[in-house]
Amino acid sequence: MITGKNYIGHTLSATGQKTYRTFNPLLNIDNEHVFTEASEDEINKAVALASEAFKTFRTVSGKRKAEFLNAIADEILALDDELIQVYCSETGLPEGRAKGERGRTVFQLRSFAELVAEGSWVEASIDTAVPDRTPAPKPDLRKMNIPLGPVVVFGASNFPLAYSTAGGDTAAALAAGCPVIVKSHPMHAGTGELVASAIIKAAEQTGMPNGVFSNLNSSGIEVGVQLVEHPDVKAVGFTGSIRGGRALLDLAARREEPIPVFAEMGSINPVVILPEALKTRGEALAKTYAGSITLGTGQFCTNPGLILGIKGEALQHFIQHLGKEIIQLEPSVMLHPNIIGAYEQNKQKAVSQSNVDVVVDYADTVQTNFARQVITAVEGNTFLNNPTLHQEVFGPFSMVVQCEDITQLEAVIAQLEGQLTGTLIAEASEANQYPSLIETLQNRVGRLIYNGVPTGVEVCPSMVHGGPYPASTDSRFTAVGINSIKRWVRPFSYQDWPNDLLPDELKNGNPLGISRLINGEYSTQNL
Amino acid sequence: MITGKNYIGHTLSATGQKTYRTFNPLLNIDNEHVFTEASEDEINKAVALASEAFKTFRTVSGKRKAEFLNAIADEILALDDELIQVYCSETGLPEGRAKGERGRTVFQLRSFAELVAEGSWVEASIDTAVPDRTPAPKPDLRKMNIPLGPVVVFGASNFPLAYSTAGGDTAAALAAGCPVIVKSHPMHAGTGELVASAIIKAAEQTGMPNGVFSNLNSSGIEVGVQLVEHPDVKAVGFTGSIRGGRALLDLAARREEPIPVFAEMGSINPVVILPEALKTRGEALAKTYAGSITLGTGQFCTNPGLILGIKGEALQHFIQHLGKEIIQLEPSVMLHPNIIGAYEQNKQKAVSQSNVDVVVDYADTVQTNFARQVITAVEGNTFLNNPTLHQEVFGPFSMVVQCEDITQLEAVIAQLEGQLTGTLIAEASEANQYPSLIETLQNRVGRLIYNGVPTGVEVCPSMVHGGPYPASTDSRFTAVGINSIKRWVRPFSYQDWPNDLLPDELKNGNPLGISRLINGEYSTQNL
Repeated sequence: MITGKNYIGHTLSATGQKTYRTFNPLLNIDNEHVFTEASEDEINKAVALASEAFKTFRTVSGKRKAEFLNAIADEILALDDELIQVYCSETGLPEGRAKGERGRTVFQLRSFAELVAEGSWVEASIDTAVPDRTPAPKPDLRKMNIPLGPVVVFGASNFPLAYSTAGGDTAAALAAGCPVIVKSHPMHAGTGELVASAIIKAAEQTGMPNGVFSNLNSSGIEVGVQLVEHPDVKAVGFTGSIRGGRALLDLAARREEPIPVFAEMGSINPVVILPEALKTRGEALAKTYAGSITLGTGQFCTNPGLILGIKGEALQHFIQHLGKEIIQLEPSVMLHPNIIGAYEQNKQKAVSQSNVDVVVDYADTVQTNFARQVITAVEGNTFLNNPTLHQEVFGPFSMVVQCEDITQLEAVIAQLEGQLTGTLIAEASEANQYPSLIETLQNRVGRLIYNGVPTGVEVCPSMVHGGPYPASTDSRFTAVGINSIKRWVRPFSYQDWPNDLLPDELKNGNPLGISRLINGEYSTQNL
Repeated sequence: MITGKNYIGHTLSATGQKTYRTFNPLLNIDNEHVFTEASEDEINKAVALASEAFKTFRTVSGKRKAEFLNAIADEILALDDELIQVYCSETGLPEGRAKGERGRTVFQLRSFAELVAEGSWVEASIDTAVPDRTPAPKPDLRKMNIPLGPVVVFGASNFPLAYSTAGGDTAAALAAGCPVIVKSHPMHAGTGELVASAIIKAAEQTGMPNGVFSNLNSSGIEVGVQLVEHPDVKAVGFTGSIRGGRALLDLAARREEPIPVFAEMGSINPVVILPEALKTRGEALAKTYAGSITLGTGQFCTNPGLILGIKGEALQHFIQHLGKEIIQLEPSVMLHPNIIGAYEQNKQKAVSQSNVDVVVDYADTVQTNFARQVITAVEGNTFLNNPTLHQEVFGPFSMVVQCEDITQLEAVIAQLEGQLTGTLIAEASEANQYPSLIETLQNRVGRLIYNGVPTGVEVCPSMVHGGPYPASTDSRFTAVGINSIKRWVRPFSYQDWPNDLLPDELKNGNPLGISRLINGEYSTQNL
C-alpha cells in the first residue's frame, strides 16, 4: 500500500510541508497518491539512524546479510501485481518491461546474497610474522575489505527497479555492510515506496538494525543536497544526467571531508561500421540499429547515439535504410513530460546546428508524451568542429557521421568524451586491419562490443558498466555486476592483532572457509 | 652525474629561467648544484611525450614491464655511493637510513616486477556466451584491468627514495602501464635527478618508448598546478601535507574532466594505552614510545602524535617517564630549514593553546636545523573542545590526552579526523573488554596495530597505508604494497570480441598461463 510517506528507518513519517504526485505519461494525467517530501529533520534522523545502524550492521555476518538480501528479493516479488501496475502507471513502460526489470532486480539482489554468503569477496590477505628477520622483525599483517559507512543512493528515472530503490547501488552497498539512504526519484515515488516497504519488511524479518535503510521523498534538489553535504554520509551512488551527477560530485568535493561519488551518467555510445561490413550487410544493420535506437523509446544509457562510417555510396545507402526502417516503427511514450520536453529541446538544438542533415523526422501526429524518432547525418569535419554535436540527446535519436577516411574517423573518436560503450561492426576479414582505431576507441570507453548493439547490459562478473568521465565519475569501478561492491568498501589492515579479536575472515582457523591470499598463495586452509 | 636539468622523456633540457639549489641542513649551507625549473613548454612536451608513449606502453607485456622495473632497480643500485652521498647532503639523514630506504625502493620495484611478470594481477574474468538462453542470448563477456593513462607523481620530502622519484607511486604506475611524470621535490632535486637518470637508462636499455618517464624540476607550486590541470594527465599521486594534497584534489575536481588524486597526507596516529598495560609496563612503554616519537626526527607519516589513556596515577607516571626518556635522547637534524620552521611554528601553536601542559621541552642549545623534542599533556575535555590540538605537528612531538574514563576516551577517538594508523596497547586479559572502543578506532584509521608502534610500514600485500580523509583522499586504496597498482587501472570489458583481437590475458588459450575467473571459478586452464 502506498502511503506517500517517507521511511525514516523502519518508521513511516511525513512531517514536511511540500507535496507532489507522480504522473502517468500514457494517460497524460497525475497519478492518485500524494507524496510528502522529506523535511530537514527527517533527513537528519535518517542519517543519524544510518550511522547508529552502521555500528552493528558493519559486522553482521555474510550469511545474515545474504538472508536480508534474499528477503528483499522475496518481498519485492510478493508485491506482485501492485508493483507492476504502479510501475507502469508511473513510467508509461509496458508490463513486459516492468516484469523483466523486476527479474533483473531480484537477480542482482540474489547475486550479491550469494557473493557475501560465500564470503571470499572481502579479499582476505595474510602475511605471517617473521620474528627473526634482520635487520627488523616482520610483523603479522592481515587485510580485508570493510564497509565505508552510510551510502546515499540516487536512482535513475529510466530504470525504476534495477537502478533505483533496491537496484544495483543499494544491493551492492547493503551487501558491503553499508546502511543505505535512498533519495527517491520523484517520477516513480510510488514504485519507490513499494520497493522501500519490501526492504523494510525484509530488514525487520531478518533482524537488521533500524536505520539500515531509509527512503526519502524528494521533488527537487534540496533533499539530495542536504544528504550529500551531511558529514555522516560516507559515499554517494548516482545514475542519471551529466548535469546532475557533476553537481553531486562538485558538492562532495567541496565538503570538509570529501567523499567518493560514483555517478553513472550520459553516453552517446559510438558505433563504428567498417567499410566491408557496411558494403556486405548495410541494410540488415540499418534494421538492427533502428530497433536499438528506439528500444525503450531511446531511454537507455547505452543507446547508440552516434554511428561512424566512411563516406561513400555504402554509407549513404545505410543512412537511407536506417531512416526507412526507423520511420516504420510506431512511436512510443517517454517516461514523463519533463523527459519528452528535454528530448524535444535537445533534438532541436542538435538539428539546428549548421550542416546537420535531418535524414528522417517522424512527422505524423503522435499522442501526447510520445517521442518522434529522428535520424541525422553530418560530415566528419562538421562533427569535429562542433562540440555541441557530441551532447547526448536522451531519446530515440541518432547521428551518423560520414568521415572522409579512417584517419578522420579515428580523429573523431579520439576527440570524444568518455563513453560507457563503443561498438565495432566488422567483417572477420577486416577487423584486424585497424589496430590503432580500436585502441583509440578502447581509450574512450568502458566496454567494447563486436558486431552487436550497445543496448542490453548483461549482469555478470565480467561486465563493466562505467567508463572514462563523463560516462562515469570514476572509471576505476563498474556500476553493474558483483564487482560494483568495491565502490563501497576500503581495505583495512590488522598488525599483530590477537587471533580471538580478529574478524572471522582473518582468524587462523579460517572458520568461514573462504579463499585467502596467505603469504602470496591462495588457499582455503587454516594457518 | 647531476646536471640540474629536467628529463623531458629521454632528453635533458633546461630552457627555463628560474633556478634553485638544494640545502644541506646538517652543514647549514646550500649544496653545489643549480637546478633549472621546468618551463611551461617543457611541461607540455613531457605530457605530450607521455601521451604518445602511452599508446605503445599500455600494451607492453608484463614480462617486458618487469624487465624495465628490474633494470630501474639495478640502475639505482649502480648509482652506488654518489646517490647515498647526495641523499645525505640533501636531507641530513644518516647513511644507514639512506641505504635502508634504497633497499626498500629496490624491493618495491622488484615486487611490482614480479607481480606483472606473473600477470594475474589484471583480474581477468571470463563469462562465456549462452546463445540459447531465453528470453535473450547471453553474450560472451571478458574483463581485465587496463592502465588509466599518464600519471603525475609528487614525491614526499621525508622519503626521497621510497616515496619519491622511483618510489611506490611511480613503480605502481609503471607496472600498471601508465607513463609517469614526476614533479621533482625541490628539497632533494639532486637525489631526484640521479634516480631519474637511472629510470631513463633502464627505459632505453629495455626499449621502452620515449616519454614513458619524465622528471620536472620545480621550486614552487606552478609546475605541479600546470601538470594537474593538463587535460592529457589522467591521475595524480601525492605524498605530503594535508594542505598540499587538498589543493591538488581541489584542482583536479575543478577540471572539465575530473581525475583521481590519491594523496597520502598527514596523520597523528592515535595510540590507546589500556589501564592494565599502563599499570604493568608503563615505564617500558615510555621508553619504547620515546624512541618511536623521535625516530627520523619525528618525520614519519606514522609518527605517534597522540597518546590516549585514562587519567590517574599510572598515566601520570607514564607521562613523567616518557618525558624523562625522551629528554635523554640526542636531538637530531630535520630535513630543511622550512621543515624545522614549520615544526617550531606548529609546536608553538599547540603549546600556546589553553590548558596544554608542556611535560618536557628540550631546553639545551641545539645545532641549527636540529629539532627539540617536546611532550605535552592535556585533559580529555580540553582536547575534545579544541580542534587545533588535533592538528599534526610534523616532528618529534607528541601529546598525551588524560581522559576521565573509557567513555570519554572513545568520544575523543570518535571525534578524530581520519588517520593512517591506530594502536592499541593492552594486556591479554583486558583487550577483549573494549569492543566498542576498538570498533570506533577502526572506523577512523586504515591500520590497527596491537602492542607495537605505528612507525615502520611493512611492504607486503596485506599492508594498508592510507585511511579515511585526511589520512588519504581515497580510503579505498593503499599507497603501499602491490595492491597500490589498483589506483592506476580501470576494469575494461570486451563483449563478443574475436579471440585473435583479444589481449593475451583474455584469449581462449590463456597463453600467459595466468589465473582467471571463468564462469565464477578460478582457473589457469584454457577455455
